[in-house]
This record gives sequence, C-alpha cells and structure tokens, in this order.
Amino acid sequence: MAIERESLIGKGFPKLDAWDKAAGKALYIHDIVRPRMLHGAILRSDRAHARIVRIDTSKARALAGVRTVLIAADIDNVPFGHGRDNTPLKGEKVRCIRDEIAAVAADTADLAREACGLIEVEYEDLPVVTDANEAMKPGAPLIHENREDNMPFRYDYSHGDVAVGEAESDIVLEESYSLQYVTHCCLGTSGIIAEFDANDNLTVHSVTQVPFSFKRDIARIVGLLPDKVRVIQVTIGGAFGSKLDIYPYEPICVHLARASGQPVKLVFDRREEFVASPTRQPAEITLRAGARNDGTLTFRDARLVHDNGGYTSWGATTPFVMMQTFSSLYRVPHVCFECTVVYTNNPYSGSMRGYGNLQATFAVESMMDALAEKLGMDPLAFRLKNAQKPGEKTGQGLVFRTCGLEDCLETAAAGAAWSEKRGRNGNKRREQRYRRGIGMASLLHVGGGAKIYHSDGCGSILKIDDFGVVTLLTGSSEIGQGSETAIAIITAETLGVPFESVRVVNGDTELMPWDVGVHASRTTFVAGNSARRAALKAREKLLAAASDQLDRPSDSLDIYDGFVTDAQSGERIIGLDKVIRKLHFGERNDVVITTDYYEPPSVMQDKYFKGNVSPAYAFGTHVVEVEVDTWTGVVRPVKVTAAHDIGRVINRMGAEGQVHGGVAMGLGYGLSEELKVEEGRVLNPNFQDYRLMTATEMPEVEIHFIETQDSEGPFGAKGIGEAPAICPSPALANAVYDAIGIRFKRLPLTPERVLTAIKQGKATP
Amino acid sequence: MAIERESLIGKGFPKLDAWDKAAGKALYIHDIVRPRMLHGAILRSDRAHARIVRIDTSKARALAGVRTVLIAADIDNVPFGHGRDNTPLKGEKVRCIRDEIAAVAADTADLAREACGLIEVEYEDLPVVTDANEAMKPGAPLIHENREDNMPFRYDYSHGDVAVGEAESDIVLEESYSLQYVTHCCLGTSGIIAEFDANDNLTVHSVTQVPFSFKRDIARIVGLLPDKVRVIQVTIGGAFGSKLDIYPYEPICVHLARASGQPVKLVFDRREEFVASPTRQPAEITLRAGARNDGTLTFRDARLVHDNGGYTSWGATTPFVMMQTFSSLYRVPHVCFECTVVYTNNPYSGSMRGYGNLQATFAVESMMDALAEKLGMDPLAFRLKNAQKPGEKTGQGLVFRTCGLEDCLETAAAGAAWSEKRGRNGNKRREQRYRRGIGMASLLHVGGGAKIYHSDGCGSILKIDDFGVVTLLTGSSEIGQGSETAIAIITAETLGVPFESVRVVNGDTELMPWDVGVHASRTTFVAGNSARRAALKAREKLLAAASDQLDRPSDSLDIYDGFVTDAQSGERIIGLDKVIRKLHFGERNDVVITTDYYEPPSVMQDKYFKGNVSPAYAFGTHVVEVEVDTWTGVVRPVKVTAAHDIGRVINRMGAEGQVHGGVAMGLGYGLSEELKVEEGRVLNPNFQDYRLMTATEMPEVEIHFIETQDSEGPFGAKGIGEAPAICPSPALANAVYDAIGIRFKRLPLTPERVLTAIKQGKATP
Repeated sequence: MAIERESLIGKGFPKLDAWDKAAGKALYIHDIVRPRMLHGAILRSDRAHARIVRIDTSKARALAGVRTVLIAADIDNVPFGHGRDNTPLKGEKVRCIRDEIAAVAADTADLAREACGLIEVEYEDLPVVTDANEAMKPGAPLIHENREDNMPFRYDYSHGDVAVGEAESDIVLEESYSLQYVTHCCLGTSGIIAEFDANDNLTVHSVTQVPFSFKRDIARIVGLLPDKVRVIQVTIGGAFGSKLDIYPYEPICVHLARASGQPVKLVFDRREEFVASPTRQPAEITLRAGARNDGTLTFRDARLVHDNGGYTSWGATTPFVMMQTFSSLYRVPHVCFECTVVYTNNPYSGSMRGYGNLQATFAVESMMDALAEKLGMDPLAFRLKNAQKPGEKTGQGLVFRTCGLEDCLETAAAGAAWSEKRGRNGNKRREQRYRRGIGMASLLHVGGGAKIYHSDGCGSILKIDDFGVVTLLTGSSEIGQGSETAIAIITAETLGVPFESVRVVNGDTELMPWDVGVHASRTTFVAGNSARRAALKAREKLLAAASDQLDRPSDSLDIYDGFVTDAQSGERIIGLDKVIRKLHFGERNDVVITTDYYEPPSVMQDKYFKGNVSPAYAFGTHVVEVEVDTWTGVVRPVKVTAAHDIGRVINRMGAEGQVHGGVAMGLGYGLSEELKVEEGRVLNPNFQDYRLMTATEMPEVEIHFIETQDSEGPFGAKGIGEAPAICPSPALANAVYDAIGIRFKRLPLTPERVLTAIKQGKATP
Repeated sequence: MAIERESLIGKGFPKLDAWDKAAGKALYIHDIVRPRMLHGAILRSDRAHARIVRIDTSKARALAGVRTVLIAADIDNVPFGHGRDNTPLKGEKVRCIRDEIAAVAADTADLAREACGLIEVEYEDLPVVTDANEAMKPGAPLIHENREDNMPFRYDYSHGDVAVGEAESDIVLEESYSLQYVTHCCLGTSGIIAEFDANDNLTVHSVTQVPFSFKRDIARIVGLLPDKVRVIQVTIGGAFGSKLDIYPYEPICVHLARASGQPVKLVFDRREEFVASPTRQPAEITLRAGARNDGTLTFRDARLVHDNGGYTSWGATTPFVMMQTFSSLYRVPHVCFECTVVYTNNPYSGSMRGYGNLQATFAVESMMDALAEKLGMDPLAFRLKNAQKPGEKTGQGLVFRTCGLEDCLETAAAGAAWSEKRGRNGNKRREQRYRRGIGMASLLHVGGGAKIYHSDGCGSILKIDDFGVVTLLTGSSEIGQGSETAIAIITAETLGVPFESVRVVNGDTELMPWDVGVHASRTTFVAGNSARRAALKAREKLLAAASDQLDRPSDSLDIYDGFVTDAQSGERIIGLDKVIRKLHFGERNDVVITTDYYEPPSVMQDKYFKGNVSPAYAFGTHVVEVEVDTWTGVVRPVKVTAAHDIGRVINRMGAEGQVHGGVAMGLGYGLSEELKVEEGRVLNPNFQDYRLMTATEMPEVEIHFIETQDSEGPFGAKGIGEAPAICPSPALANAVYDAIGIRFKRLPLTPERVLTAIKQGKATP
C-alpha cells in the first residue's frame, strides 16, 4: 500500500498556453504566414432575399495584384450543412444579408477587399421574411424554393402524459419567453489558410474545434477524398461552439487556393465577424407547467419556434439539449416538448456554449420562480423539493450516477446568504432609487460528452523521452478551455511525474489519434480518461523496468515526483529519467510509448430522443444578487454565488476560470448582449454597440465546487466547460423580480427595457 | 496458407516528396517565415590564425533595423564538438578563416550582412600552420594553447601480426595516397530558425539529420535543459552527412533569438556554404601490403595523418570506418591501422557520405590493382580469390550474415564486358588521341547502422484513420535519401494496403519516437524494421476485428490491397476501411494505434575497435570504363557498371536513385571536385570554380542489385545509402591506368593533372 502523498489533482496550475498568450507570442490564424501566401476576401450580399441577375467581375479581375476571382459558376458548388441547404458561393439567389457571392485572392488583404468592391452585382429583390411565425404561414415566400414550406425540422419529445399531469396539478402557469440573438464575440476573428501540395493534398490551418469532422466535411465540399486533407489547428482565439460547423468562407478559401495555385489566407475583420459568424439560436418559448400545493412539480409543456435563418447550422439542433432541461432539470413526471424550426431571411445560428440550455433554463427557472411564488413557497425550498438525486434515471433516460444538485442549491444559497437577503424589497421600499434583489437558478448539462455520433471517444499516444519528459499526443483540442492543462495534470498525477514534465500535443489530424472534437463539455472527462489510461500503461512499464534494474518486486515500488520511490516509506530510490535511460541505452534497449482509446459508456438516443446520452451530468446553482437603479433602469450585478457539481476538481485555477468566463457570458446574455437584427440586417456589428460585459462591470463571483467523485470520470471529474454560462441570466431575472417586482420574460435587461417596465409597472412581452 | 499475390516490395515508386520538390512547393529553410522573424548574419575571421585584440561593434549597432549584435563576451560561450574545442563565437583568437567573431540580427538579411561589414576587428597575427606534418613537429605553433601538442586523437587498430604477414608474402608494395578536400555542395545551403516562447522553450527549425542528438547538444550549448528544446526538421536540401554535427552558426542563431526576443533566421549564402560548412576529411595514407604468388592477401599496414583543421568535428572520427575497409574488405589475416589526427589552421571536416570509406577504398583498391599487376593476375580473379563470403567473421569482428561480394564482382564484370575490354590499350596504341580503359573496385560498408552510441534503434507509432489511411510516425528522418518512401512501402506491404494509403510523418522531436538519426546507411534497415513490426501489430488487430465482424477465424482471412480477403482464394470480402469504421463506430468502439521500438542486434566496439558494429553489411563492385583524351588530359567516364548487394530491393526507383547519386558523387571525387585551400583559405567558393559532375557529364550507369535476403533486414533489405559513392573513384583511377598506364595516387584526375602526368610519363605524387 502506497503511503499518503501530495496529489496534483485539485491544485491550481496556470494554463499551459497562458504564458505565450499573455506575452503575445501565441500564433493565431492572423499571425501565421505561409510562403507565397495570397489573401482572400469575400463579397457578400447586401440584400436579405433576392435573385442574382448578373455579376460582373471584370473590374476586379483587372486590378493589379488580384490573382483569382471566383463566383458560384466557377466552382463545383457542393451543398453542405445539416440540411444540405448551404453552398460555398451563391449563384442564383441570396437568402441572408451575409450571403457569399464572390471571392477574391490577391497579393494583400487590402487589395482583395478593394477588388470585392469593384464587383458589380445586379439583384432582383424578393419578398423578405424575417418573422418565423409569418414564415410558417401557408403562402409565405419560400426561402428554399425546392421545398414545400419553410419548416425543415421538427422535434417532438414526451414522457409521461401532460394531460394527466395537468389534471393532477393544483396550480398551472403558462408564460412565453423570448431569447435574443447574441454572438460569440471571439476576440480572434474567423480565419483559415488553405494550401495544396503538388499531389493535390490540401492542408488547412484552421480554427475548427472539431478537426476530424472538419477534415471529413471540407473534403466532401471541395471534392477531395478525406485522406487528402490535413487539418492543422492554430491557436484559437475563442470558439465557444462557433467553430463546431463549417462555414462558407472555409471551402471558399480552399477554392481560392486551388484556383490560384498558392496558399490563401482568409480572415474576417470585426464587422464581418459580427455579420457572418454564427449566432446563438434565438428562441420563442411558450411554457406551461404545473405543481401541487405541496410543491411537487406535475408537468411541463414546452412549445418552441426556432428561427433558422436562411440556412441550417447547429442552431437548428439545439432542441436536443433544450429538451433535456425541460425533461430532466428537477423531477417532472409528465413532459412534452415540441419545437418547429423555420427558415427566414435572418442570420443563421450555430452552437454556442450551453447549446440551447441558456434559453431553456431561462424559461424553466423563470417559471420555477413564478410557480414558487404562486405556491407561496421559498424558491429554494421549492427547488429542493423537486431536485434530482444520485441514482435517478429520468423520464428521458438520463442516468445520474452522481448528482450534487441538492448540495449545489444549499451551498449556493448559504454562500449568498439567501435566507437573509431574499425578499428585502417589499412594497414599502418602492420609493428607494437603488433596490437590491436576489435570485437563483440551477442547471443540468451533460458533463462528459454527448453521444450524437456513433463514437464520442478519444485516443491518446504517450511517449517519454530520455530526459523523462512525457509527451501526450491527444486527439482532443484546446480551444482556450484549458483542457490541455487538465490532461497534463491527469497524466502527471497518474505517472508520478511533476506537472512541468508533461507536454500535451494536438492540433494536427495527421498526427492525432481520433477524437470527436470539442463539444458537450467532454474533453477533461473523455480525453482525460484516455490520457489516464495511456499513463497507467506507461507507469506499469516504468515500474517493470525499475523492478528489473533494481532487482526488487515492482509492487514494492512507486513513482512520485519524477522518482522511483519505496512504496512503503516513500523514500526516493532513483530518478525516473535514469531508469528510462538505462531501459533505452542498457541491455533492454527499449523506450516507453503507450496508446489508448477511450469510449465513454454513453449511448445514442433513440428516435424518441431517449437514452443515456452522456456518461455523466453536471449540476449547478447560481445565486445572483443585483442592484437596480430605478431612476435609470441600470441593473448592476453585485455578486454571483456559484456552486457546481464538477465531480472532482482537476485544475482549480482552470475550473474557476471556466466559472468566471461562464458568468461573464451568462450575465452578458442577461444584461447587455444583443445582436440587433432588423429586416435581416445586423445593426450593431461592433463592440461599441454590441455590449459585452467588461472586467470593471463584473461582480464578485464566489465559487463552490461540489465534488461528487464520479466513478467513471478521471480521478472522479466531470465536465465544467459549458455549465457556468447557463444559470446567470435566469438567476439575474429572478433577482430583478425580487428587487422591483417585475418579471422579465425577454432578455437582455437593458436599462431602456427595465426603465420602461418600471414606468409601465410591468415588462413589455 | 495465403495465396500468391503481387508484392509492393521491389517495385518502383517515386519518392513521396518528389512531387512537391519538383513543383517548387517543398518548404526549405529558406522558404520558411515565422511571425516577427529577424534575419541573422555572422562576421567571420579573414585570418587563419590570429589573436583578437579589439572588436568595435558601435557602427553596426547604430545602423537602423539592427536589433542585436553579439560578440563572444555577450554570451555564455560553451565549448562543444567532439573535442569540446569549438565555441559559438570566438573571443580571444581565431584558428580558421571561417571563424565566427560576431553576429547580427536585423530586420532583413541584407541589413544584417551590412551591419557585419561595419564591425571593426583588430587582429594580432599568429604563425599559420596548414601542413599537418609540420603541425606534428615539436615546437610547432599550438593551435589550441591549452594543449601540449597539436595531436588530439590517435587511432591504433590491428589484428593478426603484420610482421608475420610480411614474412609470409611473396610480394610487398608500399604506396602513398593523397585525398583532397571536397565538400557536400548541398543545393540547400545551411540554415536555422530559432525562437523562444514565453516560457523560455526553444523551437528550432533545423536542417539537422540527427534531431535527437541535435536537441540534446544544442540545449547544452545554449544553457537549456534538453526538455526545453523542440527541433523541427524542415525539408532538407541535401545533407550527405554534413548535418550530422552542430556548427557554430546554430547556437549563434539561438543566442540571437534569445537576445532579440524574436525569431531569428540565419541562412548561408553559397560562398559562406563553401567556406563555413564542413568538408570531407582529407587523408594522407601510406599503405603497405603483400600477397603470395597464388594471389592470397597476406597483410595490410596503413598509416594515416588526418588534418583536423582548427576544431574537431566528425571528420576526426572517420578512422572508425576507414579501418573496417583496411581490416575487412577482402580477407586479410594481418592488418595494422594507425591514424594521427592533427590540428592545423585549415578548415575542419565533418562526416560525408561514405564517411572515410572513399579515402580508404581508394587506397585499398588502387593497391589491389597494383598487387594484381605485380602478381600478373587479372584484377577480377585476384579480388575473387580474396573475396569475403557469407558467414565470415572478420579479424575486426564484423559478422557477414549475408555477403554478395563474389556475386557483385562477377555481375559487374559481366555487365561491363570486363574480359573483352580489359587491357585493350597496350603500348601499341599509345599513339591514339582517345584511349579507353576499364577498372574496378569493390566496397564494404555498414548496411544497417553502426552502433556508435548505446542505442542505434528507432521507434514507430502507427495509426489508421476511419478512411483506412495509415499514418506512420517514425523517429527516422528524411534527408532526401528516400527512406520515407521505403518505410511507406514496407508498411503498406506488411499491412496489405496500397502504397498510396500510407503517410509517413516525422521531423519533430516533440512528436517522433526516438531514433539515433541518419547515419551509417541505417534508415531503411532500422526504421523499416520498426515500421514493419508496428504494422504487424496493426495487421493482427485488423484481422481480429474482421474475424469478429465476419464471424470467421482470423487465420482464414488475409489483408491485401486495402481489402480483407479470403486467405485461400484471395477473394475480396470487405473493404478494410469498412472494417475499421465498424470497429470504431460499432459496439467495440476502438481504433487501431500501435507502436514499436526496434533495436538492431549490433554491439558497440570495444576499446580495440573490435565487435560487430552493424547488424548487416553492404557490398558492391563498380566497373568504370573511361576514355582519356591524351591531348587535353580530359578523362571522360563512359560507363559505370554497378553491382550492389542490397539484401533486397524495397523501392527499385529509390535504390537506383541512390546508385545514380552515389556514382555522380564518387565520379566527382575522382574527376573534378576539389575545395582548393591555401594558407587556410578556400580559393574556389563557387560552382564555377568548384566543379560538380553535371547531368550531361554523367556516363551510362548500369545497375545490378544482388539480393542476398538478409534475415534480419525488413523483407531482407540492407542499407544502400552510402555505398554507391565509394567505388567510382578507385575504379576510375584503375580504368585510367588501364587506358594510359599511369597510376594516380592523388585525386581528382583533372585534365591538368592527367595531361601533366602524360607528358611526364608518370603522375606527380
């Protein structure tokens, strides 16, 4: 039995990439140059819906320094996307303001943009439809004329029987919630570099967060076999789900590289990033729910309309995640969920951190507060009454091996002094200018991936060099979430070497073993497990070598902090690097290389959307305290108390960073962020008019990690990537209600909206 | 038992990198740019031996665009090289014309060179010693003043007893041979890019052919732990051994990067490449040898002086290889070899294809011809009489598991019509202007590495993606020799997939498993064996998966051409990619990743230089036919007939390419190449005055491969990299003797030298 020793797990390590990023040495797509590289630019539609009558590129082609000009007719314009409804360039009609009409490769980016400006496009306008409800009506203008209507997808889920649930209810409420367009605001704008070698092999430097599916998909779109494509991920300046799909600019750049015979870089400017990168799926949610007088939830019935914009990206699939919240956040015996996805001439949505769950949780947790109020119960008590517990299998088939929801609720409430602060603003204080309030919300999210493909696994290759340095080649990607660092800690702890001895390498499909990519808060869980298993195999080999060299049974030996130690006393016997060198350069002449492939024990859901889609689930509760300036409508978040069931903390600094980032994103969603879209046009494509939370506006964030020790997770860990963004906005709205007695069902709570509501005595629906 | 099927082994495949190289798309160090990169240049000494009194860098520092100027005093000038007698910058004295005195990093390469020109150096001249025999004398000026004399190394080898051998001889000859300076003439000049990240991790883009020892050595020289260094090999525009060592420009560039805080690229121009890259070790060889009247060799006694130049690089170690030729090319019972290595103020030598063996074989094979003549034997018959045979263990301890020397001799002679053409030019034809002659020479060289370190092994990692594409991550390096292609063939054949399905990845120490580097004609043998073993493991896993999926015993299945086939009938059952996808995405959820580390069964030689240093040995014979223009002295090679014991041909096109390249290099050595060095100064640093063989000057080359099927080699193969360069020059000199009756003991056979000899009736010694 090994002696007690200090563990690396749960300590705080700065992210491996922090130094280079802080020093300005990290190489983003913007920094990378390739020999003989050209620069690309895209001419986009300035109409939301129009037929293209004529394109004249002659002036652009005549500009000195322009090497290639492409329009749809010049390329094999292969349809792509979830609905196979998008193409790289648009030849016959445009369906959104952002639509790609022509592309230029030139010696400089300025020249390429100038050439785009010289391209003349003649349009024939078509009726513009930007209201999903209008677009659903019979006779509405068809966005895709090969379809019979504008409704490409529909989701129907249920468990139990909502009619039975409603009949058993003592109270029933119905509310409509409306969630706005927001966008990821990655500080690194979108970009790609495409280049072909002499054998028609394509290498792309990409910001994708799913390199293997990117490789497969881009190959198909540009007419190559997948084995001709190598995807190299550069340092990614923010992804948050936005890089989960392929967008037209990417195959366009490949076509420019092919046509010009030179490498081509195509990078968005900030305005383009706002206009032409994906948004978070907006949502219109009508939720009907009931409870008994004792506080037991009886049913939920959610009806949603999803504005799909002109083309189908991941936004259309957010119902997969949304329905889990309706079905399984709290115990509800009868649930029905319906969502219709509708084409319009608006921008289209992708995936974004939380993936539908911010929208769903806003509805569910706003409604929870309203139900509690109607029941006359404390919102905390009401939630505790209905909280999920470990061992639960929900109506949708999710299995909660670990579940810290009750603990999260109680811990967050205690940390926020819930019972003292709740309800301080009775009507008696309505005359005060600054009014404080407190609100809470909880979350359920996948915490170890989601098996939406036939594999959700990850491979690892581990090698140790002659100096004891461990290189872990992982299939997983680092997109800023800190997973590399977590994987390094897991590897170091498993092997018994210092954290500094581990390098994590990834970012190149030619080298990496397969991984499904960054989604569903899976990386620490899945890639961490794979790394741990590869490290266990290496540890076994090292102990065997040490046993051989020291002539001692291997079970009398341990490895710790880079040394082979006595398993009993912990005493250092020999440096691990010496053992490795003797293994390599002595009679055995061997080196340590191990591999692993880990597939989580999750299943793909059936056609009724049922099944245990993730090996583990994350829970959490946020309590938000706000101060409302009733004279100006400004809502100032004062404190967020966050409790997260993380299974086990691997890297405290990294996990806290995820909570801070998630809170900032969630509060921005609740308070200030909105991509204003009118008639399909983005009105605020800049950081002046699109307001992110800034550091000075951030409240105190108190973080509690509930360590439920998941038996499947690496060292007990579960995912934390998306969870912290989910609760802030409903907790905030509930806090504002507590402060001023007005319940907002539409975000963001801008000063204008809040002040109007205060003046009207109610929120505008 | 599997049915007969067509094998990939022995076919001809263009090199994997041929397309990009031919299309100008390969990225050499010259092409690579890094963000914010500066350009470095070096100020070199123009004195061969002098004390540095003063360096004034003020004008260089004042030049706009200059970022860093370094002299020896600015850096920790760590000694390096085999004698630890070199330093990056020279502070107190210079010992060669090329010596590095100062270095500049600037915004452009032109600016950096201009700044070098502005640095003022005041010297105090010291007596220059450029004759090794002079340098050996007591009282000679000391090149390294911390030493007692100029003789840092000495090699003494013997087996048998030369005195006994001489006593048993019927004839004894003694001759002196003199081999000139030549240099590698890599078309890609030397270069490096060094950059530090924010954590003081160093990445170098390098042309090294030994990345792992480069990593270890450069770390030490620049004061880093080896684990802080990542070496990325770029496409290498020729190496031929020249990149086996570290040279001062490399740590200098690292120091420039560190001092400037930016990436720095330092690339030689052609003149600098001639002056400051290594040479082939020149040699002065006195050889005494004897034979009995029946043609049996009795003894060899070789005495050598090696001009070491000012510092010790690999040239000083060429006696290791030379002595093998003296000891073991042909059966000789009594051999003595002595070599003294002597410092001078000349340029210093590195390793170069053949590594001492061109020099040694020139002496041995010239002497063989002279002995045959004295014995009145046909040179072919004399060689056959003394040829090594399979199973032989030589006096030095080399074990010839396979040995095709007799076959090579007979095949080359037959191909060249030896018996008809030999001796056509009796004295009767002396009046002819153009006179033809034919000569031969054989070779012995290591054919599977040389264990000069404690490991001569190579690691491999193999992964197969969902499309059936195999990536082999090998530790071995591609330096133009075509080993990647050979490894791809070995992998494809072993796995049963098409050649096109295999990608070979290497060139990055962070990713590659360990390998000792490119030397000693080892890569196909050692890395090929490692790849084969990794592929065998993958094949086993694939057959198991297919067996599982098809519900058939795995020994009833085979894999061929990317399909699982019936082992009996050869009939295709299912595509391998489908089996792989079912393995990955079906219930098993697994992927194929395998690893291997192969160490050849060779040993390090003992202190008497004895032991079986390589797992296999290459043999070969070249017959060269020449036409001598007796009016001008021009020697025109008419035909080279080459027979090589290659074990087994893996890639016929690649192996033939090696023979063509080796013949060109060997003929250049014999005919035209000479780096003219006077008083330590290179007089012909350009391709106008330094004459390489060009395509139009190349003779017909007839190639025969003798396939001896080495049981340890991959599919029976042995190395071929160096061998073809070894024989041309002695065979050429022997042919010239056959043509004009003059025996040359000094190379190259330039028109001037030949014409002078014709006029004098004998060669100038």
